[in-house]
Amino acid sequence: MPEPRYDVIAIGNAIVDVMAPATDELIEELQLNRGGMTLVDADRARELYEAMGPAREISGGSAANTLAGLSALGAQCAFIGQVADDQLGEVFAHDIRAVGIDFDVAPRPTNHTDADPPTARCLIFVTPDAQRTMNTFLGASQFLPASALDDEAVAAARVLYLEGYLWDPEEPRAAMRRAIETAKDAGREVAFTLSEVFVIDRHGDDFRALIEDGLIDILFANHLELFALTGTDNIEAGIAALKDKVPTLVVTRSADGAIATRNGERAEVPAEPIEHVVDTTGAGDLFAAGFLFGHVRGEPLERCLRRGAIAACEIISHYGARTEVDLKALMDAKLG
Amino acid sequence: MPEPRYDVIAIGNAIVDVMAPATDELIEELQLNRGGMTLVDADRARELYEAMGPAREISGGSAANTLAGLSALGAQCAFIGQVADDQLGEVFAHDIRAVGIDFDVAPRPTNHTDADPPTARCLIFVTPDAQRTMNTFLGASQFLPASALDDEAVAAARVLYLEGYLWDPEEPRAAMRRAIETAKDAGREVAFTLSEVFVIDRHGDDFRALIEDGLIDILFANHLELFALTGTDNIEAGIAALKDKVPTLVVTRSADGAIATRNGERAEVPAEPIEHVVDTTGAGDLFAAGFLFGHVRGEPLERCLRRGAIAACEIISHYGARTEVDLKALMDAKLG
Repeated sequence: MPEPRYDVIAIGNAIVDVMAPATDELIEELQLNRGGMTLVDADRARELYEAMGPAREISGGSAANTLAGLSALGAQCAFIGQVADDQLGEVFAHDIRAVGIDFDVAPRPTNHTDADPPTARCLIFVTPDAQRTMNTFLGASQFLPASALDDEAVAAARVLYLEGYLWDPEEPRAAMRRAIETAKDAGREVAFTLSEVFVIDRHGDDFRALIEDGLIDILFANHLELFALTGTDNIEAGIAALKDKVPTLVVTRSADGAIATRNGERAEVPAEPIEHVVDTTGAGDLFAAGFLFGHVRGEPLERCLRRGAIAACEIISHYGARTEVDLKALMDAKLG
Repeated sequence: MPEPRYDVIAIGNAIVDVMAPATDELIEELQLNRGGMTLVDADRARELYEAMGPAREISGGSAANTLAGLSALGAQCAFIGQVADDQLGEVFAHDIRAVGIDFDVAPRPTNHTDADPPTARCLIFVTPDAQRTMNTFLGASQFLPASALDDEAVAAARVLYLEGYLWDPEEPRAAMRRAIETAKDAGREVAFTLSEVFVIDRHGDDFRALIEDGLIDILFANHLELFALTGTDNIEAGIAALKDKVPTLVVTRSADGAIATRNGERAEVPAEPIEHVVDTTGAGDLFAAGFLFGHVRGEPLERCLRRGAIAACEIISHYGARTEVDLKALMDAKLG
């Protein structure tokens, strides 16, 4: 097996987040799915944007956020996702390349119709409790074709990281299936994040089959996703159902910390102490970044979890799911 | 004179800020005009964006920032500026309308050529000392035609607020000249911010003529702009040169506070104490917002200045030139 060119290559949605503070009343008035992620069409996106306060735009996308964190820590990464040939597409591409991530998928031509939509955006309402309510217009992102895959790059990465959100649209799902095959053929690890309960509601059978077939080496889930995937209602039962089927299992529990199992070993960490949570957007994404960074470096399980907790803590201390500080320096200082 | 429909109507650049932290080394390497505002063409904008770290997009534009502050304080405002028919234009229009400002100028069609450029953007590099170095691609903004003016609205505002930056391109200059005439004919006040020394270098004769002709009722300048306009090298001499020619003169001096004269009266305030300055972008714009809010309400001169200092202090405590807190509540609390 040749020396890997990348630590992590990820396939995910290429999204720009449009973020604004919101009152609880507005969440109710707009009948939003508080704390969740909801897919919206162009009309609903327009309606929600009109109701939104003054916003700021920050690149997002779950797997892309994870890669940005990994790259900030010093990992070599590549991203595969679909933007349109428009200004938000330029913003996304700039921001991901600016942190040193390889991103070579050509922008998709857009004429702003349903058939050729603009770059994906996620309208995020952040309530005073720092909870984020996400409304995603998938736009061009859902049209990532399997032909956009660079098989050589996939085969040359230690870990292929896949975002559950992107399992929903058809074309990217096919691309991800092919990437899994390529990675496994090359003897690489496949990591998967379940993303959201609604994704499991729709595609749980696919995910369970991938797991049974031994195609998932590292699985990220929060406790609700764990319950949904395993049909359990407590964490220990959920872990018991999966720990012998996925070599590495990471379960995050928001403020209650995280648990991981890896090849029979088990570790647990509390959440990193934080004075003021501003915006929880990206907490899971950055947890995955920290964990994977330790993992690809062959670190002990507990240290991988600690890295996850520290990265998640940084991201929820400010608006947006892209790290604002020198994450490597912060982590080195915290880990001692 | 009919009761005004607006407190302030402003004509200014319609810009989206693209902001990123930067090292001092990068500023040097790119040969940027540290702390200043430089106009750049499309090629240079592309070059600088490529060299920039991951950024966030926040609506900007000097006069638009001032209006956003005024609106947050409870003033009725309208904005006149030119965006293109593109995504950044939508972002600008959304953000300004979302704070309750009337903005009705139709977007200009763009095909991303020099003749029909996209919406203006300002690439802002923020160094560790919180200084902002601005590089503005004016795009569609420089093509604001006089025909975009709503004369009735201009005549119906207590104050017409003009941004010196926009005096540079020809079409907006003509529009501003017409607006001054309309406002004066309607018996309204005309406020002008000098914006930057380079603008005075190019158009100082115009500005001095406007002042001599009694067309400027409220003039905002920082100390460097005051020196450039009056050919003096100290603040007292500068104030002496202008105070009998402009009914209200406001001179800001960054961390050294501000001085104002109004019809023979004089007041002075220190800068508002602040623990940690993050990004000085918009300090002058928000000072003007606070001051004008007090002014249109007929408040004592010192209180107008205090409002300016408080608004400026809020804006430099975070990234971006648009207020992130409930500015009215903050100001009420500080003013007691």
